[in-house]
This record gives sequence, C-alpha cells and structure tokens, in this order.
Amino acid sequence: MSENTISRRRAIALAGAGVAGVAGAAAVGGALVNGASAGEAPDPAQGSVAFNGEHQAGIVTPAQDRLHFVAFDVITKDRDRLIGMLKDWTAAAARMTAGRDAGEVGAVSGVPEAPPDDTGEALGLPPSGLTVTVGFGPTLFRDTTGRDRFGLAARRPAALADLPHFPGDVLDAAISGGDLCVQACANDPQVAVHAIRNLARIGMGVVSVRWSQLGFGRTSSTSHTQTTPRNLFGFKDGTANLKLEETDLLRDHLWVRPGDGPDWMTGGAYLVTRKIRMIVETWDRTSLAEQEMIVGRTKGSGAPLGGSDEFDEPNLDAVGADGQPLIALTSHVRLAHPTVNGGARLLRRGYNFVDGSDGLGRLNAGLFFMAYQRDPRKQYVPIQRNLARRDDMNEYLKAVSLGLFACPPGVTGPDDFWGRALFA
Amino acid sequence: MSENTISRRRAIALAGAGVAGVAGAAAVGGALVNGASAGEAPDPAQGSVAFNGEHQAGIVTPAQDRLHFVAFDVITKDRDRLIGMLKDWTAAAARMTAGRDAGEVGAVSGVPEAPPDDTGEALGLPPSGLTVTVGFGPTLFRDTTGRDRFGLAARRPAALADLPHFPGDVLDAAISGGDLCVQACANDPQVAVHAIRNLARIGMGVVSVRWSQLGFGRTSSTSHTQTTPRNLFGFKDGTANLKLEETDLLRDHLWVRPGDGPDWMTGGAYLVTRKIRMIVETWDRTSLAEQEMIVGRTKGSGAPLGGSDEFDEPNLDAVGADGQPLIALTSHVRLAHPTVNGGARLLRRGYNFVDGSDGLGRLNAGLFFMAYQRDPRKQYVPIQRNLARRDDMNEYLKAVSLGLFACPPGVTGPDDFWGRALFA
Repeated sequence: MSENTISRRRAIALAGAGVAGVAGAAAVGGALVNGASAGEAPDPAQGSVAFNGEHQAGIVTPAQDRLHFVAFDVITKDRDRLIGMLKDWTAAAARMTAGRDAGEVGAVSGVPEAPPDDTGEALGLPPSGLTVTVGFGPTLFRDTTGRDRFGLAARRPAALADLPHFPGDVLDAAISGGDLCVQACANDPQVAVHAIRNLARIGMGVVSVRWSQLGFGRTSSTSHTQTTPRNLFGFKDGTANLKLEETDLLRDHLWVRPGDGPDWMTGGAYLVTRKIRMIVETWDRTSLAEQEMIVGRTKGSGAPLGGSDEFDEPNLDAVGADGQPLIALTSHVRLAHPTVNGGARLLRRGYNFVDGSDGLGRLNAGLFFMAYQRDPRKQYVPIQRNLARRDDMNEYLKAVSLGLFACPPGVTGPDDFWGRALFA
Repeated sequence: MSENTISRRRAIALAGAGVAGVAGAAAVGGALVNGASAGEAPDPAQGSVAFNGEHQAGIVTPAQDRLHFVAFDVITKDRDRLIGMLKDWTAAAARMTAGRDAGEVGAVSGVPEAPPDDTGEALGLPPSGLTVTVGFGPTLFRDTTGRDRFGLAARRPAALADLPHFPGDVLDAAISGGDLCVQACANDPQVAVHAIRNLARIGMGVVSVRWSQLGFGRTSSTSHTQTTPRNLFGFKDGTANLKLEETDLLRDHLWVRPGDGPDWMTGGAYLVTRKIRMIVETWDRTSLAEQEMIVGRTKGSGAPLGGSDEFDEPNLDAVGADGQPLIALTSHVRLAHPTVNGGARLLRRGYNFVDGSDGLGRLNAGLFFMAYQRDPRKQYVPIQRNLARRDDMNEYLKAVSLGLFACPPGVTGPDDFWGRALFA
C-alpha cells in the first residue's frame, strides 16, 4: 500500500467512530483491488499519474482501461461561484489522482454532524492510474439563446466552432453538448466513478449533470507501450492513432500553439465526443470477408488488407487479381487515412460501451469516440465529412450524441486551477 | 499466455487472411489485459474457472469484479429449438470459460463467406475468470396469460413462486422478469460482454434480449480470501455474506436438496435480482453520523456500531449512554440480520452500477442486487419484507427492476447441457 492510499483510508477513519474507526481501518491494510488479495506485488496499473504539468493529464497518458465521462450544465449565474468551483475541483482532482480522498474529511469539516467531504466508495483502493481532464463547451461562452453568461464570449476560440450536421446523425440533444465536461479515466471503474461523483457533489448548486457515459475496453492505444485493443465489431481499433512518443506529430496535430487562438488555450487541445451505437446484431450476421472489406483490415491480426502486420502502412494503391483495390474505396481505413484527409490526424481515446438493451431485443452497445486535436475545423470535421458520406460501415452505425469541448492547458502550481487563464 | 488463449487467437486467424492472419495474430502474443503490458507475470485474475461441476460456476465462485447480466424472452414456440439452443449455449459457454472463442470459427463455418462463429472482441484476452450461469424464469413454465408454452408447467418448482409486491417498489416491467437469464462474471468487462453477446447471437430467432445490466465493483465477497468491497454509499457491503468455505451453511441455505421440490433442481439455487437505484446526491448531503446510524456500521472500518472490527458480530442488544440501542431498531444491519429473520441467510453477488444520468441532473447509479438461495419464500421474501417496512435506508433507495430465476445444477459431462433434466 502506498502512503497515498493510507491517507485516503486515514481521513475517513478520523471522521469515523474514534478509536474503533481507526482500528477498523487499519485492518483494511491489505486493501481489495481488482480482485487481487493482500500481499501481492504492486501492479503498475494501480499507481498514480502526475496531476500537474504543461498539458492536462488524461490526453496522451497511456489510455487506462475504464472511463467515466460527464457533461455538466452550469446552473448558476454567478461567475465567482463558477470560478470557486473550478478551484475546488482542481484541488479535489489533484488529491484523488494521488489516491487520496476528495476532501480533508478529518481536518476541515470531518465531524460526525457534517456530511463527509468524500463519498467513501474508493476507500482502500489505490490511485489506479486515475486522470481527470476538464473541458469547456461552446455554451459556456454564449448560451443557445446567444447570451454571454459569464463575460467569456470574446474569449471563445474560433476553433470551438459549432460542429456541422453530418448525414446519418440522429443526435439526441439531451445527451449532447454541455457547458463543462470531465473525463475520468482509471484502471478501476470504481475509482473513475468515485472521481466524477465527488466532483458532481462539490459542484452542487453550481453545475448539474447533463449526461454521463461509462466505458470499458479502450479502443485506442496512445502509447507504443500498449497493444491495440478491439472494438465491439471485433476489430483492432486505433492502430494508426497518434502516440505520446510521437512528439513532433503531437506538436503539429494535438496541442494548441501560440497564435492559434486566444492565449488561454495554448497547451490545451479540443475534444470531440461522439457516442456511436453499433448495430452489433446485424454486423454479426455479416460474413467475415465483408466485415474485413468494410474495415479494410484483417480481423485476426489487424493488418491492412494486402499487408501482413498490424502496423504495416495501408497500401491504398494495391489492386487484387480482379483489378479492384485491395482496400476498397469505401472502406473505413481508407476514408479515415491522413492521405485522403489532407494529412489530418487525431489523438483518439475511445471506449467501448454497453448500456443495457434497447427494448427491441438488442444490446445497446457501441463506441464512445473521443478525439483530441489542435483544431476540429481542420481535423475532425473533414475526416468525419469524408466518413459520413462514403463509409460502408455507416450501415451498422448510428451516432446518437455529440460533444465539443476546449480543454485548457495543465495546472502548473499550487495557486493554479482549471481555467485560470480563461477567467483572468 | 495459456494454451487456451492461443486457441482463441488461432481460431480467427485460421478464418482470416491465411498466412498474414496467423503472423499478425502471433504478434499479439503478449496480449493486452487490464492495462498490464507484455511479459509480466501471469495474474491469477486472468485464469480460468472450471465449467463442469455439481453446481453451476458463478454462484460460490469468488466474486469477479465485473458483471454482464441479461434476461431473455423466448420467442420461439418450438420446444426442440429451445433445447437445441440450450445445448449450443452450454457448449459455447464451456469454450468461452476456458478462454476460447464461442465457436469453431476455422473448422466448422469459418470460411470468409460465412459470418464468424465468434464476434472477435475477446481475441487475445485471457479467460479472466469468466463464469456463465443460467436460470429459468417463472414465465418459461407458464406465461403471463397462463399458457404452458413448452410443456413445463407441471415441473415448475413451488419455490419459484411469483414474488409479492413490496411497499415502495416502483418496478419497471420492461426491465423485470424474463424467461431465461444469463449471468456472466469476469475480471475484464470485455470478456463478460463478449460472452453475453455471443450467447445472444447464438440464440437469434429463439430468444430476444429483454433487459441487460452491466456492473462493476462487486458489493459482496463470496470467499474468506476476498476483502469486502464498498457500495456506492461508501460502505462495506456484504460482510456477513455466505462464503464458499462455509459448506454447512451452504447446504442449509444455498443449494436445493433432494425432496425440496422437483428433482431437476437438486443441486441448483434460486436467484433473485433487484436493481436498486441509490439516490447518492441526497445520501452525500447526509451527515456521517446519520449515514452510520442508518447502516448500523462504521463507514471507515465497516465494524458494526459498538464493535471494533468489520467481522465482529453485531451486538443487537448493546445500548449507549442514552439508553438507546447502539444499532438502531431501523438500521439496515439489524433488519437484515439472520436473528431477526428466523435464521434466513442469502448468498449475495451484487454489483455497483452507473447507467449514465437520469435527466434530472443526477447520476443514475446504485446496486444491482443478486442473491442466490435454497428457497426465496423462506429467505429473500421475509428478509425483504422486513427491510421494506422499516429500513431507514429506504429513503435513499428506489427498486426499479426485479427478477426471479431457477438456476439448475451444474453440467457434469460432455453430453450434459443446461436444463437437460428439466426437459427430459
């Protein structure tokens, strides 16, 4: 157990039943984590990720296995309350990232007569690679009636332009958009849920949960140290994703640079979220050959058709014995490829989801697509336009939710907080 | 990597792009699992659980960390098709439990012109402790119109009596009941989802998904080797649960015995599922002292009030300085305790859930309660009646879904299948 974990346990024990509480908490020393029993060697997936930095954690951080994403509406009109909450969120997120409780339960308000400053469900759990990443939606700058609620309208980046409608999208407004978003990623879902739930608790009266999404089985690797996972079509997904080791590409395609727009976004990135229902029952009745033609890759290895290894560059010019392109003109791999999108690339951090069933005898399952980038107008929009028009995979997909958020740079010191430069 | 995992990978490779597919699949050897990278020591949470046995796996099996539960409606009128599907399910579940694909992709129908016999999203993943457990609902024996659809009405156990209505329940019929259920538990959600999804695929035309539930962070330990996890109220849950090591108690309280009812259920158990929405936002505004009084335990250690250790027996007679019981008369621990329920006990296997948000600014979160037992009329019903009437916790709970299923004994040999004795 790390010192941080002990802190998380100790805090509640102090607020609990005195001596009895402390003794009891100590007995939890060999804490339960991911089914591992006490005394096993520490698992790197249980460690902590640095919170402070030039960029927010949770973007190029090697993608953790679980996601809890939430979009909030701001329900206060009071700019100072909003700023105060962002300060409180920053402090709580820094603590939780380190494996501690969300607030000083024992020291500040931790008397039995007060509600606890931490909800407790992560007591005894290690940091589990938690990252918490915040973004600001277009409606924070000017709401849907055009009102400048917080004096931020002039600071809205041009790159945070409303996204166009794409053919085939059947978006549900109730689970789209949002004034603020928080992405919590961790290797234990209980830790991710705990983080979101405590930020919602801290934000009571200032923000209200607009929509929320859980995900598992990340669909993209963001580091060369990770193998490529599979989406619910059974294919490797995100092979050509930007990786944290590719610093030159990240500079060109991911991080907002000085001069790109307002200074407060320098070092940040724009996030597009897109909840894509996959009609898996129909897909599962499709032949393997057709599945591979639609994707443009081999199902087993993930190699591009005509290639032999997953990481082979797709040969878009190769033709088969029948004179047809090996990688079909309407295949997903071709249409998403940088060479047919003016070189545009994305850093993807998507997750699989299953949200129960749909009332029609089918699983409500799919991909919660998340992509970080320097400018959606030059990256997500042209790529998605290309896919929406021609991708054969669209027959099996239905986009139901869309979000766009400006994720500010990282927090760099004890007085810094999420959005400090925006509100300065 | 185990031989089983290689089998799972090899099967699709054979059905894929020939040599290229095999080479690519081999490159996945150091498979991605729970964020662990290639070359690490094997994790026991990734191993396999025996499928065959006197009892079904997934009941006393040390509770895995993730759940995918599904209830099906039978949509065929053809008894033989139903039996055929149960045979196919049994074979597929045995394979998947061992870390293999759901069907012989390469050998049987694995030509590119046929849909694959496995959906592929678990390729390269280890068995991950998968168990698949099946149950039969009351409506399989006689549907809601009283019709005996499959000639099973006379074989319905008396213990599979329709559950009474409890005060405060606001059940949604669309996510309650079901003719069949399948519980898939694993330490990787992608593996649990893969199992359910492939059984649904195999059952196409015979069954239709009625409702489905994902869970994480199990709320009960079923073995002395496991520490007690926490529910979303932040409290340890299931401390007094039946454990697999308590064979005498399991004989009395869990497994159906000869003479209890129809022979086909001997060695089985009855499952009650209850999806309980927890109003966590209200709970989080409740003082620590009140939370502990409602639960009857200390939040930090999980010790019963007045005790010092989680596993101390609650002293229901102890009174404080004010002359009031230390464990309140309306506390959850007291009302659920065997001594106030005629000795009735349950084997619980619940899971936490978060299903997005509720459209009212709150997380849709709670407990998917699952309890196995020898006779619900003598166990779940009296305990729940007691809780429904008096439990202070009810103010923060809302039951939205209920299910009851007769889970037959285990499969014991190659010709055996789920429900063989029922349909004999």
